[in-house]
Amino acid sequence: MKNTYNPLSSSIRKKLRQILGKRFLETQEDLRAYSVDASPHSFLPEAVALPESAEEIAQILRLAQKEKFPVIPRGAGTSTTGATLAVKGGLVISLLRLNRILEINREDLVAVVEPGVFTGDFKRAVEEVGLFYPPDPASYEFSTIGGNVACGAGGPKGLKYGTTKDYVLGLEVVTARGEIIFCGRRTMKGVVGYDLVHLFTGSEGTLGVITKLILKLIPKPPCQATLALWLEDTEKAAKAFLEILKAKLFPATAELLDDTTLLAVKRFLEKEILRAQALLLLEFDGAKKQVEEDLLQAQKILKNFGLKLEVATSKQEREKLWRARRLISPALKKIAPGKLADDVVLPRSKVPEFLSFAKNTGEKYGLTVACFGHLGDGNIHVNILFEKNDEIKAQKVRVEILNKVLDLCGTISGEHGIGLTKKGFLPKELSPEVLSLMKGIKQVFDPHNILNPEKIF
Amino acid sequence: MKNTYNPLSSSIRKKLRQILGKRFLETQEDLRAYSVDASPHSFLPEAVALPESAEEIAQILRLAQKEKFPVIPRGAGTSTTGATLAVKGGLVISLLRLNRILEINREDLVAVVEPGVFTGDFKRAVEEVGLFYPPDPASYEFSTIGGNVACGAGGPKGLKYGTTKDYVLGLEVVTARGEIIFCGRRTMKGVVGYDLVHLFTGSEGTLGVITKLILKLIPKPPCQATLALWLEDTEKAAKAFLEILKAKLFPATAELLDDTTLLAVKRFLEKEILRAQALLLLEFDGAKKQVEEDLLQAQKILKNFGLKLEVATSKQEREKLWRARRLISPALKKIAPGKLADDVVLPRSKVPEFLSFAKNTGEKYGLTVACFGHLGDGNIHVNILFEKNDEIKAQKVRVEILNKVLDLCGTISGEHGIGLTKKGFLPKELSPEVLSLMKGIKQVFDPHNILNPEKIF
Repeated sequence: MKNTYNPLSSSIRKKLRQILGKRFLETQEDLRAYSVDASPHSFLPEAVALPESAEEIAQILRLAQKEKFPVIPRGAGTSTTGATLAVKGGLVISLLRLNRILEINREDLVAVVEPGVFTGDFKRAVEEVGLFYPPDPASYEFSTIGGNVACGAGGPKGLKYGTTKDYVLGLEVVTARGEIIFCGRRTMKGVVGYDLVHLFTGSEGTLGVITKLILKLIPKPPCQATLALWLEDTEKAAKAFLEILKAKLFPATAELLDDTTLLAVKRFLEKEILRAQALLLLEFDGAKKQVEEDLLQAQKILKNFGLKLEVATSKQEREKLWRARRLISPALKKIAPGKLADDVVLPRSKVPEFLSFAKNTGEKYGLTVACFGHLGDGNIHVNILFEKNDEIKAQKVRVEILNKVLDLCGTISGEHGIGLTKKGFLPKELSPEVLSLMKGIKQVFDPHNILNPEKIF
Repeated sequence: MKNTYNPLSSSIRKKLRQILGKRFLETQEDLRAYSVDASPHSFLPEAVALPESAEEIAQILRLAQKEKFPVIPRGAGTSTTGATLAVKGGLVISLLRLNRILEINREDLVAVVEPGVFTGDFKRAVEEVGLFYPPDPASYEFSTIGGNVACGAGGPKGLKYGTTKDYVLGLEVVTARGEIIFCGRRTMKGVVGYDLVHLFTGSEGTLGVITKLILKLIPKPPCQATLALWLEDTEKAAKAFLEILKAKLFPATAELLDDTTLLAVKRFLEKEILRAQALLLLEFDGAKKQVEEDLLQAQKILKNFGLKLEVATSKQEREKLWRARRLISPALKKIAPGKLADDVVLPRSKVPEFLSFAKNTGEKYGLTVACFGHLGDGNIHVNILFEKNDEIKAQKVRVEILNKVLDLCGTISGEHGIGLTKKGFLPKELSPEVLSLMKGIKQVFDPHNILNPEKIF
């Protein structure tokens, strides 16, 4: 989809100022603030809009459609794939001012929210009334619910509770034509026409701008417990988890830290945690008796694996066990200046094989590969660490690893999406026929390709 | 979407015979067998195909695309909306010969099946290895898994476990162009490109012919218990259930039978069940201790509602309590020759108001309206009963009831889909802009409108 776009002329800028007043930003300082996200890339937009209503966004899109300039919707800018960057210039629309929690309904078990609400704030508001919104991407304290839906975010709780896309019932969306539409519903079920809700979810702002969300809630599980198993190697951790599943235990979370990740965290903590080379963190939740029963059974299974088994039921103790997991990102940044990160997913049974492959492939090129992540649903975060002049080698490792993922019937992204950084790998996973159907859909929703151009395809 | 189609000429028939051999059916007897489903309508197809592979289906569709004749995919023909009928003539493709369970993987928690597998057979095969496929449409013993996915079927377990669409991970589909494509994945998560899996799910055979399915499984809950509460009125049953939810109990199933439904069942059973005017059936599942605790808490809440509370934990006793629920369909058929049936969904908090409205609206026109169904997720089956010459009145009641559903932020179909019988109501729920996007998608997937014409739109 090659298109030519018009720059934001002074007459377009005048019209945008009429719509937005002081909420139309043009200074170099402002533009630079919106030129980056959590990816390694940077593109300067021509201007930034801070709309406060769906109606304002509709006006902007009608103008963009007429004048042919790119529009890039943006939440908190935590995308790791460059999905929020203005690759072709144009106007970034920040959704941060649409930030109201409009309703949390305890009888219907639904919430109605605007896209700019921070996910952590939303989760707390829901828990305050005894309900639960399970999706928990690592970024939840500083990413928005609209961004989570736009990229189909996941998180550790995916194992038991599914991911963001399992909690979206209805959406208000501004289309590329500048129409405000509603799709989906506020009921638990519905099969009226095609499922546009799931089409917008994970479409990375390329099909419309989400302006309101109806989300499904569930009752909050009253009890949680965490189990930490320190092991001598990573594959053994993956095998231990498969035994848990075979025993029909179904933890809410199963997180893995491999040797490199653990080493990074150890250095960061500046102390040695035993002689462990891997850490498996399991979390069980539910009614008290259920959790007690699960813990006993899990301990029985896991006592034959690993070096040390720790159990925590109080919030404070649990936080302590989770500390190593939370430190991963800053710790990995400390040990290597360069990092290529992917969020691949494998069928659970293939995880042990994949973990050795990733490690060995790194070693073949003299690089370190750190793996951690959501063992529970097979979603492994692969981090290829490199010094500045080793980037080409790192890219080679990446290609071999992603090819292996596809050989093992896996997928190249479980929760980050494609954005800019994985575009090149899309044709490896999707056939030309499937890509052609997807591009056909894009054409229907956004005939002039003004919405977030250069992303996904 | 108006199209003209070519009749199945002798040269087309010759080509179809070359593809299918004796599995190409043309006798009047055969055509009549495929002219009906569980809707009140009937349309004679021109011929019927019994393909045995995706490749054969691809050949048929390439021919249909070239020669412009309609193709109507069909499972077991249990659609209540006429979704499987050959409204424009053409070729019915029965998927019943693609009926192999290809894989049930206990480590990956996935199954790979062909569309013609009966859902009941599949559920049993999965349970034999200790796993669980929750979706349980009432028809599960005689409907196919492919049909369930094509119409987005639901069932009582929707409350806790979601519906069919929550269990579809990947699909092999033959497109209208006769290409065999794969979309989705066999992993638990994935956000690579647009979500075509959910687009095909519930699209009623209008976007492609499903030829293979990758389904998500979960561990089988070890223990079940059923609770039957007989009450003096229907609204009270709905309120009792809201109290259960408020106490953060989350049953797997919450089924309601209103006075008329219960009366029908009573007559059918030829005995009086107490003086109850409504029945609420709750089912809890999970670990043994958990279920025991839930039951105790539920009994405490429900003892102040209703006339009699029964609890069953053994399979045999549970079956006894479920008997009234299972008898509804034959019982309602016995008390009235005509029936207009809808499967509306309301936000849970609106269910009591809706139940009175439905009853009163029936009474206004001198007709009886029986309501039963999945109280748990607000999915109420509304049955307008009428004598032969009252159909016009019944249609008026239907319109008032469906309008009320939309006024209460509900949806006109939770699990049956639109098909033929609800087409007229689609523009009441969906805006012209949304309909236009859906029609645009249809155009991308099936430019000549050969797949299941006259359905949904």
